[in-house]
Amino acid sequence: MPARPVVPDARYGERLAKAQALLAKGGVRAALVGVGADLHYLTGYVAMPLERLTMLVLPAAGEPVIVAPRLEAMMAAECAAARSGRVVVQAWDETDDAHALVAALLAARGGRVRAGDRVLLSDRLWAMHVLGLGRALPGADFGLGSEVLGELRMIKDADEIALLRLAAQAADRVVAQIAAGRLVGRTEREVSAEVRERLLAEGHDVAEFAIVASGPNSASPHHDAGDRVIRAGEPIVLDIGGTVDGYCSDTTRTLWVTGGDPANGPSAEFQRLFDVLVDAQAEASSAVRPGVPCERIDAVARGIIAGGGHGPDFIHRVGHGIGLETHEDPYMVAGNAEPLRSGMAFSVEPGIYLAGRHGARIEDIVICGPAGPDVLNESSRDLWVVPG
Amino acid sequence: MPARPVVPDARYGERLAKAQALLAKGGVRAALVGVGADLHYLTGYVAMPLERLTMLVLPAAGEPVIVAPRLEAMMAAECAAARSGRVVVQAWDETDDAHALVAALLAARGGRVRAGDRVLLSDRLWAMHVLGLGRALPGADFGLGSEVLGELRMIKDADEIALLRLAAQAADRVVAQIAAGRLVGRTEREVSAEVRERLLAEGHDVAEFAIVASGPNSASPHHDAGDRVIRAGEPIVLDIGGTVDGYCSDTTRTLWVTGGDPANGPSAEFQRLFDVLVDAQAEASSAVRPGVPCERIDAVARGIIAGGGHGPDFIHRVGHGIGLETHEDPYMVAGNAEPLRSGMAFSVEPGIYLAGRHGARIEDIVICGPAGPDVLNESSRDLWVVPG
Repeated sequence: MPARPVVPDARYGERLAKAQALLAKGGVRAALVGVGADLHYLTGYVAMPLERLTMLVLPAAGEPVIVAPRLEAMMAAECAAARSGRVVVQAWDETDDAHALVAALLAARGGRVRAGDRVLLSDRLWAMHVLGLGRALPGADFGLGSEVLGELRMIKDADEIALLRLAAQAADRVVAQIAAGRLVGRTEREVSAEVRERLLAEGHDVAEFAIVASGPNSASPHHDAGDRVIRAGEPIVLDIGGTVDGYCSDTTRTLWVTGGDPANGPSAEFQRLFDVLVDAQAEASSAVRPGVPCERIDAVARGIIAGGGHGPDFIHRVGHGIGLETHEDPYMVAGNAEPLRSGMAFSVEPGIYLAGRHGARIEDIVICGPAGPDVLNESSRDLWVVPG
Repeated sequence: MPARPVVPDARYGERLAKAQALLAKGGVRAALVGVGADLHYLTGYVAMPLERLTMLVLPAAGEPVIVAPRLEAMMAAECAAARSGRVVVQAWDETDDAHALVAALLAARGGRVRAGDRVLLSDRLWAMHVLGLGRALPGADFGLGSEVLGELRMIKDADEIALLRLAAQAADRVVAQIAAGRLVGRTEREVSAEVRERLLAEGHDVAEFAIVASGPNSASPHHDAGDRVIRAGEPIVLDIGGTVDGYCSDTTRTLWVTGGDPANGPSAEFQRLFDVLVDAQAEASSAVRPGVPCERIDAVARGIIAGGGHGPDFIHRVGHGIGLETHEDPYMVAGNAEPLRSGMAFSVEPGIYLAGRHGARIEDIVICGPAGPDVLNESSRDLWVVPG
């Protein structure tokens, strides 16, 4: 595996400054950023997703501060933004009111928050904190952090693209390894566990998911992996992903296992369905370039699948943004007229599902380059017909 | 590993009925339960933590319904509560407004939600859904699901205790395996990865966390595991856990690695600190019985540690409830006067931390039995002095 690119400490300062400028421009008092991808993006701090409040208080103007429980303050102080002096860390003790502390820190950075003041909350902040902050900041006009942070996070810089590429290629290797191994006679769950082990062995820090959907389960797009035993003469939808330094992989390939007997190959009907899918996926990816609306990528795939007679069987959008989260802005879905811009990263993953029978999906991660698509996944998009 | 106990399908019907009775009694219109432990507890559905809304709409009276994105509706329909006919599943499509759907389902179960009507949201519901539901249910008086669901989830039944015990004993075996293996010269991260592998090998479905805090890092209670190389003559705080059928393990033991040279044994000062800690942990566990306030368990440990001269060095509460979440009600913390009841499950985990030098922690999971503590972890609570 090639050396990992590193997001330099200075980048966090740039991101914090840009976010503050966007808050000021939008007339927003502050963004309150809890544990998760936004916090990672702005400070480098990967905090534990526990119930004690960890929160970046990012005012439109003034010094950003990370509020952290006492027992994690040492960890918070080691994050890139803190150790390079771009944020301070404020610890709170077990019997303190952490939401009141946030309100006090905001008051010290621009005055007490008044009724109607706009305050953004990170999109995945838990309800316990949303309601607690509602009490501490009565009358505040809450919005979502993605209003401002989505704008920054959607456009990936070179280091981020390099990490996404590393992750994608590692996932590609795992697909090839699984396709080359034994499948018939094993349960989906066993194969899923093997996928997770291989994602780690190929350089992922975390194996996030490993969908192994065999036979009729392949018609359930988010089927996880169960006790069903894989048989010869059926498809497997393999949809796998994890993270490399926080950046996500996510790829889907469809396999057909023969058990070594050519008589168990794909039916003509399945192959026809799959040919439509390959075409839809390729055309949707080819349509990627700056200025094209996100919904157009969905429409390209949907048009081809409908033309192939499977319109009602493509029951989800064609793609989602990807970065520090597996699913993030921008979404490739009807109704999203946002124009693609260079540096956006997202999945292109049409699927066709016949309930109770079988299904198929093909998924790549694609970067919108300055002149067209940069497809990160490199494994074959054909139906992988394997002995299993 | 012994056969796993199974939570029978009928249990979910009982839980749903109890929750509805508590909602009705409290004058609450409904609980809106997103992805996570509450949903698992009430329906058996372990949904993916993604951005599309999955939500159990649980009215005080009327039929409960799980709202699920179309592509996951087949999975939702397979959960225990759905397949046994206790909830129905309502799918929504990519361009639908899922929050409006929730409002419509509520309106069909007791009439339109009016300003001031009390509606509970699961504690960990994401802000994007909290704000979306705020728009769909204008004026609703939102509270937290734990107001009602905490009361149910705090008291574990026999199956739940059996699963917690299985998980605890599996974690105990991993502690013993790690203590018997090589430690000196390896990085914390390498040992942490080994812990995760061993948690899975010993029967966990998910390895949630594996804190390996060596030398000075042992003074940072939630230090994860980094690139520091473990040396002879220093302590390691090992705090590990995962899940067995959703139920969590969480145990901490403190090791001292000598590298095989008795001259590298624990200093008299560290051993004194540790003796205080052992005493505090044992006495706090012994104080567990029905009727004792939660805060008393914290106070017992804190009194002994303060008496040993380390009061300011015990910088966190003594424990947290545990079940389908690693941290849940009830918390053993100053200010929580809730009396212990038979069936409550929680950690007892005092620690002493000397910043920049070293620290130690001992953690067991304890069930409040009808007459006293039932300690699930069985490995030695002494300082594990090992060659490493």
